[in-house]
Amino acid sequence: MSYFDAASAVPLHPVARQALLASIDEGWADPARLYREGRRARMLIDAAREAAAEAVGCRADELVFTSSGTRAVHSGVAGALAGRRRVGRHLIVSSVEHSSVLHSAEVFEADGGVVTRVPVLRSGAVTVESYEETLRSDTALACLQSANHEVGTEQPVAAVAEVCREAGVPLLVDAAQSLGWGPVEGPWSLLTASAHKWGGPSGVGLLVVRKGVRFAPRGPVDERESGRAAGFENIPAIVAAAASLRAVRAEAVAEAVRLRELTERIRARVPDLVPDVEVVGDPERRLPGVVTFSCLYVDGETLLHELDRAGFSVSSGSSCTSSTLTPSHVLKAMGVLSEGNVRVSLPPGTAEEDVERFLAVLPGAVAGVREKLGAPAPTAVVREHELVVDSLGKLCPIPVIELAKVIGDVPVGGTVRVLSDDEAARLDIPAWCAMRGQEYMGEEPADRGSAYVVRRLV
Amino acid sequence: MSYFDAASAVPLHPVARQALLASIDEGWADPARLYREGRRARMLIDAAREAAAEAVGCRADELVFTSSGTRAVHSGVAGALAGRRRVGRHLIVSSVEHSSVLHSAEVFEADGGVVTRVPVLRSGAVTVESYEETLRSDTALACLQSANHEVGTEQPVAAVAEVCREAGVPLLVDAAQSLGWGPVEGPWSLLTASAHKWGGPSGVGLLVVRKGVRFAPRGPVDERESGRAAGFENIPAIVAAAASLRAVRAEAVAEAVRLRELTERIRARVPDLVPDVEVVGDPERRLPGVVTFSCLYVDGETLLHELDRAGFSVSSGSSCTSSTLTPSHVLKAMGVLSEGNVRVSLPPGTAEEDVERFLAVLPGAVAGVREKLGAPAPTAVVREHELVVDSLGKLCPIPVIELAKVIGDVPVGGTVRVLSDDEAARLDIPAWCAMRGQEYMGEEPADRGSAYVVRRLV
Repeated sequence: MSYFDAASAVPLHPVARQALLASIDEGWADPARLYREGRRARMLIDAAREAAAEAVGCRADELVFTSSGTRAVHSGVAGALAGRRRVGRHLIVSSVEHSSVLHSAEVFEADGGVVTRVPVLRSGAVTVESYEETLRSDTALACLQSANHEVGTEQPVAAVAEVCREAGVPLLVDAAQSLGWGPVEGPWSLLTASAHKWGGPSGVGLLVVRKGVRFAPRGPVDERESGRAAGFENIPAIVAAAASLRAVRAEAVAEAVRLRELTERIRARVPDLVPDVEVVGDPERRLPGVVTFSCLYVDGETLLHELDRAGFSVSSGSSCTSSTLTPSHVLKAMGVLSEGNVRVSLPPGTAEEDVERFLAVLPGAVAGVREKLGAPAPTAVVREHELVVDSLGKLCPIPVIELAKVIGDVPVGGTVRVLSDDEAARLDIPAWCAMRGQEYMGEEPADRGSAYVVRRLV
Repeated sequence: MSYFDAASAVPLHPVARQALLASIDEGWADPARLYREGRRARMLIDAAREAAAEAVGCRADELVFTSSGTRAVHSGVAGALAGRRRVGRHLIVSSVEHSSVLHSAEVFEADGGVVTRVPVLRSGAVTVESYEETLRSDTALACLQSANHEVGTEQPVAAVAEVCREAGVPLLVDAAQSLGWGPVEGPWSLLTASAHKWGGPSGVGLLVVRKGVRFAPRGPVDERESGRAAGFENIPAIVAAAASLRAVRAEAVAEAVRLRELTERIRARVPDLVPDVEVVGDPERRLPGVVTFSCLYVDGETLLHELDRAGFSVSSGSSCTSSTLTPSHVLKAMGVLSEGNVRVSLPPGTAEEDVERFLAVLPGAVAGVREKLGAPAPTAVVREHELVVDSLGKLCPIPVIELAKVIGDVPVGGTVRVLSDDEAARLDIPAWCAMRGQEYMGEEPADRGSAYVVRRLV
């Protein structure tokens, strides 16, 4: 098996395992107690906090351990918004943040707050200008990820932190995808991260709040972790998280070079090996181990299943996976193809031959899925000067497949109107037009779903 | 070292350790993923859920894993209150609940809810009648612990659950202290627990919501654990929690008998070995391993330090411990002495000789603390027919020591007025009177602090 889903979770680093085992018999007691076992637990968590703070580049008393990265984000966003409630109730997030940030924003909106979602370029990156223009006198908080979890694009965090600082607005950086690779630069105010993304254990997140940042923890009072993370501390896991962060950092520079070469290989060769593929995300400013591409005329879940059978564990932002019926909000915000989407995220230590084997297997897997899907002939009728394709009730990638099948039936200059009630069509039909050099003329309301109108140019 | 603070945290059970080690290499992946590693993680968490549900006595789909018992309580109380918001905004809790319940109630109050805090008997138990009388047509939720964490008193949970059921009000049972000993009886609606209280790992709590109970999770949306516990699941810890709960239960009946005999020994012999001691909590309806007593004229922190030096790790609900300046809310609600308070909570497997050694060491430790504290002569002046003792600025247990020193200086029938600004005096002076057969006449406002008036009877 080749596990290529490190952006979701990285297998436990050997140092994390060792540290967990070493502290499991010492770290179970309550660190708030004054007796021997409590003092020992306190020493362990204090040392872990020092180590983690050093890796983050902050003071130890600015960092608390939460029970997950998601909890760190929920607590960090809510606490920062509450701490600056008097300043105003405006929140800025990018449109490609992790769901924990976006769902925090929704709670804030439901409570009367105002949220601006900053759009991204086709690469997945925000521009510094877009944040700068969005900052207002009543902005309580801005959030920006250090790098995107689905496409690997790095964000201009240091520059955005600078414009936020100038405006007097704290910036919360979700560093979940990048902290193992290095500290976040720039004058950020809050930072969150998740240990299992760098090879630490599950059950540990980090929340850093810089001194001087107004912060009012939400929820019931709890004296643990400076009142910022309720519940009994999981000290063995915290020790393992801190130890593995140090270990991962020691290997980061060399491993980044190696993984970057491997993902570059995938980026470069997949479009040659597989027809009708769009590689997405910034080709330069990106995480070392992540590469994402989408395959026309392929359903994501079936492709994932084929790759799993061939021994590869990857994930997908397609709508056509079992857990969701809409395409990934990241791909949507980028305006790129979502069908047949595959995210390859290599964990540290990935062997070159596994990547080569993936490149050998992928073309057959995609071709197999396309063959299965390609059969049904589209239902098309000619109305005056245009062709109407009825894809109602058909799910991604069928509407795009049917469009591709009939486009040759209209003369250059003629139009095809695709009727579809699948959410993914809204994203994938324009993306297909861009890939194929056809003109996407827009979407019109229809009796059921929408009509997507395409003019044949070539 | 003898660790006698199981009510705070129990050392990891060998089965928990084994299960953690066995699942640490299999349980790190995201159980929501469809590939091999994800399916394996899903199988582990599903099996753990079945095992935990069986031990609780509920359906697997009624139980979710949280990151701690505190989180389970916070989420359970908030979700149940929100789910029944249309019924009303009245919450019932006992006055001796764990701080996580009481702090949840405070948040509800701050948000406009109404909270009734049910008083307890001197034993620490509520009466069924007191809950029955408190139920109203707008009661959204009632909360009652299965057993008290500071004095070990068991609550009449099954009977209270019955009157709640009749009134159509859900009862949330905080079973943190008892779940290792057996399931909670009666028609309760929600249940919370914490794995590290039964020898499971830190980082795992349980939240059970019976089918049919209206429940609306609070906070940002998160699809994990049925939307009731945000954040990536800590599967190795969850597996260890469930496995150790089964293991602890298999040993529970025999171990309960053994520990009950050991705590009975402490209950019976401490008053003979140490003068001026009050053993608190119900002598019969109590947890097997917990016994709590308070020693007059002793400061809790110094006594804990002396016992720690002698090799015993215990805790205290006294105000005079470093982490707090007020006496435990539990001792306060019971109206018992708080000074020199010691909670002994024996973990399963405690050896008889360790308990005997504790009984051998305790008298000297208490005497040593008393000797250190006993020196200063009280400042007392006679005003008309009463003696006034100025204990202003002196902390527990000094005001009570000074009262005890001067009571013999007034004739039987005369009064002593103790001026004190220490919060503990409010609890400890009446408790001293009850222990000494003197009459406590009440508290009066004074220029600084309060005047506590005592009439000499004997």
